Amino acid sequence: MDVKKVPDIITARLPVYLRALQRMADAGLKTTSSQELGEKVGISAAQIRKDVSQFGEFGKQGTGYSIDYLMDRLREILKVNRIWDVIVVGAGDMGHALANYQGLINRGFNIVAIFDNNQEKIGQTIGDYVIEDSDNLIEYVKESGIKIAILTLPASAAQIVADELIEAGVRALLNYAPVSIATPPNVKIQYIDPAIHLQRMTYYL
Amino acid sequence: MDVKKVPDIITARLPVYLRALQRMADAGLKTTSSQELGEKVGISAAQIRKDVSQFGEFGKQGTGYSIDYLMDRLREILKVNRIWDVIVVGAGDMGHALANYQGLINRGFNIVAIFDNNQEKIGQTIGDYVIEDSDNLIEYVKESGIKIAILTLPASAAQIVADELIEAGVRALLNYAPVSIATPPNVKIQYIDPAIHLQRMTYYL
Repeated sequence: MDVKKVPDIITARLPVYLRALQRMADAGLKTTSSQELGEKVGISAAQIRKDVSQFGEFGKQGTGYSIDYLMDRLREILKVNRIWDVIVVGAGDMGHALANYQGLINRGFNIVAIFDNNQEKIGQTIGDYVIEDSDNLIEYVKESGIKIAILTLPASAAQIVADELIEAGVRALLNYAPVSIATPPNVKIQYIDPAIHLQRMTYYL
Repeated sequence: MDVKKVPDIITARLPVYLRALQRMADAGLKTTSSQELGEKVGISAAQIRKDVSQFGEFGKQGTGYSIDYLMDRLREILKVNRIWDVIVVGAGDMGHALANYQGLINRGFNIVAIFDNNQEKIGQTIGDYVIEDSDNLIEYVKESGIKIAILTLPASAAQIVADELIEAGVRALLNYAPVSIATPPNVKIQYIDPAIHLQRMTYYL
């Protein structure tokens, strides 16, 4: 399909729609409407129809969407109709939580290795993983062709490690370190920092 | 100060500026420019000047911003010139990671209690916390006047617990459960779901 350039703000909502559709499918539903989906995700039905229409025709007026079909198409658009190998750099509490988290594999992501530079941690296990030496990180990325890395590092190390990973071929970073990281235009970065999210709400309290 | 209605997209960037300024202050810097700050956070200098000017005059042309002064003002705007008590509901891996996380207290948030409904977890300790029985959650919220809760629950429980918390007086929810939660207009909600963030990047890979 020929996809026109779609604004980031729209593509950012598609994973939210996919997550809600997955929950409907898990509950045994077969079809939904923009109205129903909108109520699940807190977005207007009109906005959902507009967002989805950016990528082609998905539903017929009055009959709603086939949940399976819409999920398949969203997975295709988001390129999670496959499994991406992902590495985690940093085996602290957050690295542990991610290693044990079961919610990635069914959404397109498989954590394949966890790295740390702490000699006391290297060789220890977290679930099915053996913590690997971060001295071997760059070689691993180059040999495996890994494109996605999750950083659960101290702020002071995040930029340096990010630069090395990008140099080795990583193109998407999910950063848990509480610091902004500079990346070239061909590399995507997303941030998870609970204090930032909390501060976005206290403004309104 | 009389603050006009500022778009959400602008207020959402203020915590990112504050975080970058804090790092500059930690490094011993006293002043910065919109150019320098922009490079740290990946936002144009013009955008930063525009965002900050929504809230009054902060810097003089050519002399830049006093880091301490700008931080003080941003903390005041974001209402983190005080410490907010926060509860965590759900003592799984993510609850553990949050309880041990040192990065909230110096940014305006103090986790005061952690709750779970698992009888085997109740009474166990995480760091300085004793896991409390979620049967006591609502009474705790009402008596303490807690306004902010972090949910690290299974998706199936998140809406029910959120409804109860809101009924008890909570006005801001940070939700780690992989599900959208419906909230009334006077309640703020933010989401942390690593799969959503990862899917926002694979679209571009």
